[in-house]
Formats: sequence, structure tokens, C-alpha cells
Amino acid sequence: MSRPTGLIASKGLELLTFGTPNGHKASIILEELKEAYGKPDYVFQSISIMENIQKEKWFTDLGPNGRIPVLVDHDNGKLPIMEGAAILTYLTRNYDRDHKFSFVKDPELSECEQWVAWQHGGLGPMQGQANHFYRLAKERIPYPTQRYVGETERLYGILDARLAGRDYIVGNKYSIADIANFSWVNVAYFAGIQLHDFKNLYKWWERVNARPAVQRGTAVPSESQLVNKRYQERLKEEPEYKQKEDELAETCKKAKEQYGYKYSSP
Amino acid sequence: MSRPTGLIASKGLELLTFGTPNGHKASIILEELKEAYGKPDYVFQSISIMENIQKEKWFTDLGPNGRIPVLVDHDNGKLPIMEGAAILTYLTRNYDRDHKFSFVKDPELSECEQWVAWQHGGLGPMQGQANHFYRLAKERIPYPTQRYVGETERLYGILDARLAGRDYIVGNKYSIADIANFSWVNVAYFAGIQLHDFKNLYKWWERVNARPAVQRGTAVPSESQLVNKRYQERLKEEPEYKQKEDELAETCKKAKEQYGYKYSSP
Repeated sequence: MSRPTGLIASKGLELLTFGTPNGHKASIILEELKEAYGKPDYVFQSISIMENIQKEKWFTDLGPNGRIPVLVDHDNGKLPIMEGAAILTYLTRNYDRDHKFSFVKDPELSECEQWVAWQHGGLGPMQGQANHFYRLAKERIPYPTQRYVGETERLYGILDARLAGRDYIVGNKYSIADIANFSWVNVAYFAGIQLHDFKNLYKWWERVNARPAVQRGTAVPSESQLVNKRYQERLKEEPEYKQKEDELAETCKKAKEQYGYKYSSP
Repeated sequence: MSRPTGLIASKGLELLTFGTPNGHKASIILEELKEAYGKPDYVFQSISIMENIQKEKWFTDLGPNGRIPVLVDHDNGKLPIMEGAAILTYLTRNYDRDHKFSFVKDPELSECEQWVAWQHGGLGPMQGQANHFYRLAKERIPYPTQRYVGETERLYGILDARLAGRDYIVGNKYSIADIANFSWVNVAYFAGIQLHDFKNLYKWWERVNARPAVQRGTAVPSESQLVNKRYQERLKEEPEYKQKEDELAETCKKAKEQYGYKYSSP
């Protein structure tokens, strides 16, 4: 594929995305809507964040924050929509007419808004920082590493408690609250989080991950190497990968010990 | 006031809050609604986060994340609402019948959702981390300090560009998009951000801050020592305070130099 330089569609929806948790939120709900209703039609473009395409003017004219995903609704005045929570809300408001993935009345309506916001303002940003300090930054710095891995574990504990005795986060129905949170829980191990320690959350992750539309959505724009399933496969298939991962885990363990971190959630 | 141990009202709204940006979002919209419509009535309780009251069981039964603010609507089945973005949405959906602070149609409706989400997932979490590393953490660690102060500056640049030629963030109308973002911009200096460098944003901050309901809202549960106005007063009144602040700014400047930070926004 050649480097994107502008929008390619003139009707339907167009998703500018990349294979990250925030990108997956948008592609999963689009696939779920398409499976449930046969529409909306959408095309996507892969916006490589390694090449900083999301910082180019044609992109920031649509999404001024310079981050993926951005959705453009060509059928609604070419409206551009940035921010995962706003994309989930927009798509269900306009395309989920039977409320298969959303709610119409309180308390479920507000509860769904609350858990989408909880992911958007907590789980996402904090797990993103855990990724950075656990593995992506040039230096391994103990204090922020244990701070963000620890806070992410606290948040996983909150969601694990919420899922005790429930199959889905809100109203006993699979909804955008699940999609928002799943997208980040689906890359737990990459951030140094041992998902299997969170029993309710693990079962919920398996339940959501088994959905065909979720499998298709997480393969947009291409199969991800970061998701839990692929991560676990690589640990078994690639001894060098496993060794590096063990070293990261050991570094994080020492950082936690240095600062007396104790798991205190919920 | 004695230490809160449970809800105190049985009708109307009850806000469990503290004098932080996230608390101010809720109290500002409540004051705006009351000024515009004469209702809803609300009472508040001060939940001291220094005493960890928000981690007590009676509180986490309402707000499982253990963070302020939590709003309880006694007139709607005693519904508890956590997360600032969800509180703003809930209150305007249920109490802003003439849409004085909200929107009914796209593009403004979606744009408002986008900029509320942008604050909730970006400006809030990142400025919160800047606070931590710039001043609150026990150690001053250069890398995360420049990372979070720098990212907050990038975000201020985005909002500054949005406000070029506009009085308010969405649809030329003061709305919950302004309230959400104002609450964090109102404590810019505390995070090491020189707000006056962002010309459009500074004028917008003055414009919003001049509203009587905003003044009342930011005094709930009590006058804040962290807001820009009070911060600037203290710099003039207290030489020791100014000296400490100058030292923090110098430490941050060196951290930026060490990592070659350059302001690159938007």
C-alpha cells in the first residue's frame, strides 16, 4: 500500500486507524454493526504511527490531536470524529437503531457512559504509560515503571470486581462498554500485566475475544502482534523473545520491591 | 465538619467531591444549571483525598474506582455516577432541557463529545502526571518530568489552535466542552505550564473564569489554593513560595534540555 495522503472514499464511513487498542475499539464496533445490521459500509486506511502519518496536515485537519483513530462519516456532511469514546458513542447513536450494543435508559445508559469513560480516562492512559516505561522508553526507570504497571493492576482489579457474577460490564448485555475495555485488556501482557491473575476478567476477555466480529475488528488494518493470544504464542515459539520478556518482568519486579509496591486493589 | 461516613441527602442531587479539577467540573455544571434553571438542588460533601475517604467501603459502593467526584441522583433511583465526562453528560441529558450547555444535533453534538473525551482521556490524565513528577512525587526524575510537562504543553497547543478565532470550543456557545477543559486549564501553573504563552487559551480561560457560576463552582467544597488566580497571588505575596516554584521550574527546564525536548505542537 502506498503512503496515505488524504481521504479515499466519498460515501459511507472511512476509518483512519492503526493496529493499537484505540484503533481496535473503532474497528470492532464497525464490524459488530455490520454483522448485526448489514451496514454501515466502511473502508479503512492504515495510518502508520511509526511514520508519523497522523501528524501530517491532511490528517490533523480531520483529527487535530494528531492521533489515531479518526472516523469520517461521508454521509453526514463528511464529519470527522476523533477520540475512541466519542467514536463509540457516535456510531451507536447513528447506526445502532435497535440498541444491540448500547442502552436507551438509565441506569444502564449512564452506567455504560461511566465504564466507557473509566476506560477512556483511566485504563487506556495508564496502561499506555505502563507500555512506555515497561518496554518502550529507551531507559528502564524504576519509579515510573512500578507506578504505571501498579496503577494498571489496580484498574484491572476494579474491573475484575465489577465482573464478579456478570458476563458483561453493564446490564448483562455485550455493549460498547465491553468493546472499549476489551481493546486494552486484549494487550495486557504487552504492558507487563498477568491477565490470568484476574479470574473474572480473564473469562470475560475469552468470552469477548471469541466473537467473530471482534476477531475481524482486531485484524484491522492488519493482524496485531501485540494482542494476548499472539503474545502467548510467541513466548512458546521464540526462546529469545521469551528471554527478553522474562528480563523485562524481572526488572519490573525489582522496581516494585524498591518502592514497596503492594497490590491493593480494589 | 465531621468525617463523612455515608450519604446525607434523601432527595435531589448529592455530590461527593474535593477541590481538584475533576471535582470542579461537576460543581461548575451544577452551579450553571442552578443559575440557568433554578434547579437542580444539590448538596455536597467534602471527601478528603488526603485522608483516603474515597477508598472507604461506603464510598466505593457508589464509586468503585475510589476516586472523586461521585454524583448521586436521589430522584433517579439513587443512581451513583462516577467519571467527570459521564457526570457532565448525565447532568445535561437530564437537567439541561433547553440545551443551554449542550447540543442536540451533529456536528456540534459529536464535536462536544469529542472535546469532552479529549479532555477526559488526554489533558486530564497527562496534566495529572505532570503534577506528580513536576512537584508531588518524592523524587524529581528528569525523564518523566519532561515527558509529562511536555505532553501537557503539546495538548495546550492543540486547544490553543482550536480556540483561534473562537470564543468557545464548540459551536460558538459555552458548553460542557468548555467546562471540562477549563477545570484543568484553571490549574495550569501548578503543573509547570506557563498558560500566558498560549494566547487564545489564556483569553478563553479569563472569559470562562469570569462567569459567576464558575467562581461558585470552583469554591466547592472550599476555595482552592491551586487555581491560577490564587497561584499568581501567592507568587507575589510569599517570597519563599516563589523561590520554591522557581526551583521547580529550573529543574524542569534542565530535564527538558537533558532530553532535547522541543515544543512541537500542534
